[in-house]
Amino acid sequence: MEEKEISQAVIGRLPRYYRYLGDLKDQGIERISSQDLSTLMKVTASQIRQDFNNFGGFGQQGYGYNVEYLYEEISKILGLYQKHNLVLIGAGNLGQALANYVNFEKRGFLIRGIFDSNPALVGKEVRGIPIRAMEGLEAFVKENDIDIAVLTIPKTSAEEVAERLAGCGIKAIWNFAHVDLNVPEHIQVENVHLSDSLMKLSYNLNRYNKEKEQKE
Amino acid sequence: MEEKEISQAVIGRLPRYYRYLGDLKDQGIERISSQDLSTLMKVTASQIRQDFNNFGGFGQQGYGYNVEYLYEEISKILGLYQKHNLVLIGAGNLGQALANYVNFEKRGFLIRGIFDSNPALVGKEVRGIPIRAMEGLEAFVKENDIDIAVLTIPKTSAEEVAERLAGCGIKAIWNFAHVDLNVPEHIQVENVHLSDSLMKLSYNLNRYNKEKEQKE
Repeated sequence: MEEKEISQAVIGRLPRYYRYLGDLKDQGIERISSQDLSTLMKVTASQIRQDFNNFGGFGQQGYGYNVEYLYEEISKILGLYQKHNLVLIGAGNLGQALANYVNFEKRGFLIRGIFDSNPALVGKEVRGIPIRAMEGLEAFVKENDIDIAVLTIPKTSAEEVAERLAGCGIKAIWNFAHVDLNVPEHIQVENVHLSDSLMKLSYNLNRYNKEKEQKE
Repeated sequence: MEEKEISQAVIGRLPRYYRYLGDLKDQGIERISSQDLSTLMKVTASQIRQDFNNFGGFGQQGYGYNVEYLYEEISKILGLYQKHNLVLIGAGNLGQALANYVNFEKRGFLIRGIFDSNPALVGKEVRGIPIRAMEGLEAFVKENDIDIAVLTIPKTSAEEVAERLAGCGIKAIWNFAHVDLNVPEHIQVENVHLSDSLMKLSYNLNRYNKEKEQKE
């Protein structure tokens, strides 16, 4: 596979292709035309072709796409099935929800340790994984070859924890804290800002209501 | 304010401006130059000016931006402080995490009811809000003027629940189920697909690792 820079917009769309192809595969569908895939996913066929061309195509004229092949190729591109060791920091409801989501494990994301600053939670377990005190974070990350940290902690402590993680060699942070982290550039950060998403919904809802009022 | 169509890309960036301006406001900062805002937010000053021009500017030559004014204007654009009545469907860990997040309430998103199909959960409470059986969903939505539904249920039941919601007049769905919903176009949908976000992180991490290997 050619190693060229792929835009984050394309990368952002790959998991959705992966999801649809997985569903098709589960339904026993072996191949699909770009037109049918386009209808199903509600994106243009040309967008699909352009996106896939970033990785060298995968389609055959007159045949369409081989579902299983495409699914496997995208999973390789996304680096799934490669094992990643995770720590989860913050064992509140959101942290527990993520720890209980078994699909992450199937895709190679293994939660090795859970940490929380609340002494009342330390020693308890989530899905068999003990909750540890924050003091042991650095040693645990180093000893267990942890590459990804999941931050489900309040924004007030997120910066400090991110600095500690950067200091002990973490490679990536999946950040649910409602703040943009200041970490060295070599650390990959993916933010999930839930409020931002709700505000976008709010905007679209109010916009629709206004337009409707104007029409009436 | 002029009523023109604003791109979803710009809308998607507004909550982040709102968050930064809120922090500046909390720190007692009254005004900020577009250059300083640019440095703080790590986006170009021209991007900021372009984004704000969609709503008629807000900046003054030589003065910069008035933080409080800009914050309030963006909150108006986003439709915050306008009250929205919500139901939350799915009282698992993720649902409970959202129900416990008091900041949503501050911004006008009021969870009026929680529903779950699990009889063992029905009758329990989350933050004082009783969990109800799914049978009562339609009547509750109509009687309580609910406009937004939050779906924190598995993908297998999401389609059916979305159809029921469409049938009883819901206006917007904040969807955490790992599936794209098929609902009429007038219903606003905002998806939070957590796996998609984790896969994007995985891609960037593997990409970085590969590049590093090649350099070594």
